[in-house]
Amino acid sequence: MINKLAIIGIGLIGGSFALALRRAGMVKHITGLGRSKKNLQQAQELGIIDEASADYETALEKTDLILLAMPVGQTTEILKKIKPFIGPKTIISDVGSTKQDVVTSARLLIPESFKNFVPAHPIAGAELSGANAANADLFVDKNIVLTPSDETNINSIEILSKLWQGCGAHILSMKPYQHDELLAMTSHLPHMLAFTFMNYIFSNSTKKNTESLLNFSGGGFRDFTRIAESSPEMWRDICLANRHLLLQQIRAYQNELAHMNELIEDGDGSALEKFFLKSQITRKRLLNNKN
Amino acid sequence: MINKLAIIGIGLIGGSFALALRRAGMVKHITGLGRSKKNLQQAQELGIIDEASADYETALEKTDLILLAMPVGQTTEILKKIKPFIGPKTIISDVGSTKQDVVTSARLLIPESFKNFVPAHPIAGAELSGANAANADLFVDKNIVLTPSDETNINSIEILSKLWQGCGAHILSMKPYQHDELLAMTSHLPHMLAFTFMNYIFSNSTKKNTESLLNFSGGGFRDFTRIAESSPEMWRDICLANRHLLLQQIRAYQNELAHMNELIEDGDGSALEKFFLKSQITRKRLLNNKN
Repeated sequence: MINKLAIIGIGLIGGSFALALRRAGMVKHITGLGRSKKNLQQAQELGIIDEASADYETALEKTDLILLAMPVGQTTEILKKIKPFIGPKTIISDVGSTKQDVVTSARLLIPESFKNFVPAHPIAGAELSGANAANADLFVDKNIVLTPSDETNINSIEILSKLWQGCGAHILSMKPYQHDELLAMTSHLPHMLAFTFMNYIFSNSTKKNTESLLNFSGGGFRDFTRIAESSPEMWRDICLANRHLLLQQIRAYQNELAHMNELIEDGDGSALEKFFLKSQITRKRLLNNKN
Repeated sequence: MINKLAIIGIGLIGGSFALALRRAGMVKHITGLGRSKKNLQQAQELGIIDEASADYETALEKTDLILLAMPVGQTTEILKKIKPFIGPKTIISDVGSTKQDVVTSARLLIPESFKNFVPAHPIAGAELSGANAANADLFVDKNIVLTPSDETNINSIEILSKLWQGCGAHILSMKPYQHDELLAMTSHLPHMLAFTFMNYIFSNSTKKNTESLLNFSGGGFRDFTRIAESSPEMWRDICLANRHLLLQQIRAYQNELAHMNELIEDGDGSALEKFFLKSQITRKRLLNNKN
């Protein structure tokens, strides 16, 4: 239970965290900060935050937790802005999809508070954005990855963990590099593939065939492309922040795709069937019938 | 309304067609044929078919409609088998995901009945298979593409259309080539990308990281890979049947992927954001908020 929470960026994640904590009765007062006045106003109207603020000094006074929930690309700028106003016991955390870059920035820019910085990443879907999309159930049964350093205060980790558990989430812990590598494979790569697919469809859609394309957009198309509607700004930042690991993943995928292409070129039905079977079995094993 | 329907292959599609027609009161008697005795027996137990048969001669006697609903790769073999037993007024149709190959085979193998052959493809999701997966609602508000030839009997087209409409579906009509090209883009290509992605994940999953992979399989991963569980046999047949058009699509996609890869390599944030925005806008426009 904390008294005062300040969230920078009241989007899907920041807003849902606020709603979930409020429902769990784990926070007394929530201040929202962010670039868009309109979004903050809406967040206040929706009861997500108690107060919208443009003044970091007042907003961060006696704050128990500052949550960075704006796009990852603004991390450096925001850390510089909040630095003078972080109290000695204030916990700082984030929700960024990449962790190495955030940890490096925090170590560099808020060295005195680094022991209270608990990097976090909620693994929760996000093709929607803005305060409007916030929902108190978003984190129920979802995983939250924490990537603390050796210096990180155990007490800060525990408080943050309890808050996320109050939102219904499960806590995992790993090294920032391990997180970024796994995410590059399971999240960043499929997003790139889906974005590329939609761009490909765009290049091939003419006035003439758009209606036909629409008619062929079955359930498979819809599900496969859902992540292709994710926030362009957020994904620009993820690409830049996790560039090297992501490029490795894309290159390895290109090789796998070239291999499958060869099987089709060769008309090798038996090898194709095996390839598809391996896919089917792997997905069943990984998702364990969570369709 | 028809008296007797024979369905060859009581899987998701064949079984669902039977259930939907039955519910609509549009058929009196349904005979099921197929490779697997166990599956046919189950279909009978589930009330999908009235009768399971292994004898084509008896099964096809006085049949109003023969529906080919087995994997596309068996088309040639089945057409040869049914040929002697097709009545002069019997309508023949199929549900194959490719149409040029089926039309060519039918023209060649059942020339006398070709005027009553109405090629069809229901655009309805199918990562499940077997009679067990059949469901009477599968075709509600889905599109059924008919690809008749100039020779096709109008009356046969009308009867088949009414039956599908009775299942809740909408009828579209186009040339076989046009169908195969559009499907290669909107369905076959994304399936190949998802299959390849799962194979890639398989290659990279070790005992050590499988649990981590599991924990990172969020909603995006789940949706993106749903089609990667589709029937290996069915997709082997689709790849072989629509090989040339599919290869064209894969090659064009590879170029688009290489382009995106370059943007990441260059660290070109502005171009990446535009690329993702184009994706977001295209999907919104095509799917019109059907998330």
